[in-house]
Amino acid sequence: MGSLKEKIVGAVAADLAAIEKRLEANLRPELDLVRDIAGHILFSGGKRLRPLLCLLMHRAFGGSHDLVLDVAGIFEFLHAATLIHDDVVDGAVLRRGKSAAHTLFGPAESVLTGDFLLARSLNLAAATANPEIISVIARITEQMAQGEIEQLRNRGNLDLTEAAYDRVIERKTAVLIEGACKTGALLAGVGREDADAAALYGRELGMAFQMADDLLDYTEDEKGLGKLPGADLREGKATLPLICALRSADAETVAFIRNMAGTEFVAQDFDFVKRAVEKAGGMEQTRQRAMDHVAAAKKAIGPLPDGANKDLLEMLAEYALVRKQ
Amino acid sequence: MGSLKEKIVGAVAADLAAIEKRLEANLRPELDLVRDIAGHILFSGGKRLRPLLCLLMHRAFGGSHDLVLDVAGIFEFLHAATLIHDDVVDGAVLRRGKSAAHTLFGPAESVLTGDFLLARSLNLAAATANPEIISVIARITEQMAQGEIEQLRNRGNLDLTEAAYDRVIERKTAVLIEGACKTGALLAGVGREDADAAALYGRELGMAFQMADDLLDYTEDEKGLGKLPGADLREGKATLPLICALRSADAETVAFIRNMAGTEFVAQDFDFVKRAVEKAGGMEQTRQRAMDHVAAAKKAIGPLPDGANKDLLEMLAEYALVRKQ
Repeated sequence: MGSLKEKIVGAVAADLAAIEKRLEANLRPELDLVRDIAGHILFSGGKRLRPLLCLLMHRAFGGSHDLVLDVAGIFEFLHAATLIHDDVVDGAVLRRGKSAAHTLFGPAESVLTGDFLLARSLNLAAATANPEIISVIARITEQMAQGEIEQLRNRGNLDLTEAAYDRVIERKTAVLIEGACKTGALLAGVGREDADAAALYGRELGMAFQMADDLLDYTEDEKGLGKLPGADLREGKATLPLICALRSADAETVAFIRNMAGTEFVAQDFDFVKRAVEKAGGMEQTRQRAMDHVAAAKKAIGPLPDGANKDLLEMLAEYALVRKQ
Repeated sequence: MGSLKEKIVGAVAADLAAIEKRLEANLRPELDLVRDIAGHILFSGGKRLRPLLCLLMHRAFGGSHDLVLDVAGIFEFLHAATLIHDDVVDGAVLRRGKSAAHTLFGPAESVLTGDFLLARSLNLAAATANPEIISVIARITEQMAQGEIEQLRNRGNLDLTEAAYDRVIERKTAVLIEGACKTGALLAGVGREDADAAALYGRELGMAFQMADDLLDYTEDEKGLGKLPGADLREGKATLPLICALRSADAETVAFIRNMAGTEFVAQDFDFVKRAVEKAGGMEQTRQRAMDHVAAAKKAIGPLPDGANKDLLEMLAEYALVRKQ
């Protein structure tokens, strides 16, 4: 499984280094504290998936725009901004195995640094002087904020339907990846149909990534996750594995899980939940849905010109299913 | 003094109504909760100063762009977004005599609604398809976030210099009003020199407004303020009246005030501070500095074509000095 990751990373190593360098150059706030807070999350081992997708999609359509690295970075800044705000909102203490920014620098400072990153994203978008791109970026941010609010409102609601779950993850995850892909294509000067294909690839990939991510919370240990397992259930968040399980588990198991949701349960009880989710087919159904989205993503870019960039986009779609973190 | 306000309001009543209507039309989030939270602050008796300035400046330069009301609304959305985030950050419980949004709807929901409003602002900016305007809006947001962080870092620092105070209020207040005026001019298609004049008027007016606002905290009662007086000192914020006073008050008074800063002091003690600020010339010096900024604002628009819009811009500058809230 590791070989797919190694293959991708090997092929894009120089691009990742260029993305990294441009991210640092574009952060440049006036205040050291903003740099420290933003840098804490920006330079803590993110995979740069979103900038990479933007860059690869751009090239897959034959693009070689001067600003593509700046534009690609927008999606990492937006991602960082929402992670910072989400951790404040959720009261999360760990992020990628490190203390969440707000626990080190204060919630107020973190909220404002998130605002700075949102603004910086839009500034980078403005530099393209392309109203369609700017509009895509602004709409993403609107959608993400609304997705997070919806997720917050659903907290503690274990009766969440699969359709409602889909709507939340579409807004909170898929629209950003969709935007990264669509923007890469638009910056290459493509027409409506190609931009739509790029957007569809991104949306489907985003859905697959979030489902795979939600699955990890039920399959990985603390070391693999960089945070305590069971975080979603502890926060009262019903994600796909649990939704599937609650549909078919016996009444006693359902009642037991309902009682745990939103509480500080012990590891032993969470092990029981994991076994129940597995037994009820929650893992399998989630994997299947993620696979379907990956297939749809690959299908969306079928018409693209063959070449190394398209190959990498296909590999990245596959990677959604095998990644550990 | 009320007659100046009546004169302005009478002249712009129809414009204010049009601004109001467009703000409501442009808010349209997908979630009711976002509308409730954003609406709570957006439709709670704001003066619409920023949209009005944008509109008047646009017209003063002969502009009649279709989108001017949408663009003018951007500055009210940005203003509302920062007020919502600031109240969360400051833990403020009252705003304009009503409960602050986060106390009613929760801090997390409020942070995310602020994000939505920031994004909506940029979406409206994108609709102009004018990269210079979009860039102005994005830069404003960056500056404001940094200004708020700087203010936060200065909390409890009663040794704040007047220059450092100026820098904070420039970022947190003046850049937004500057942006509203500059954008109104740019949308009218003016050249660099006129855009700079509009921007300068806005910046000077913004400085005057914030100084007048900071003065109110030392001169008005709870009814006039819509919140408990002494909020700045209670939060450990040194504003201009206090900075002036601490420079020349006797050692005993300075020590007494220092001990109060950042604490929940009683009204009687704050009355003592008010008298000390008055005696040390803090009120007078603040008023004088605000007057200087108003004069500079009026001077900046001196070269504009004479007419009703220029007259109103001059009256609004005067109004900074006499307004109560």
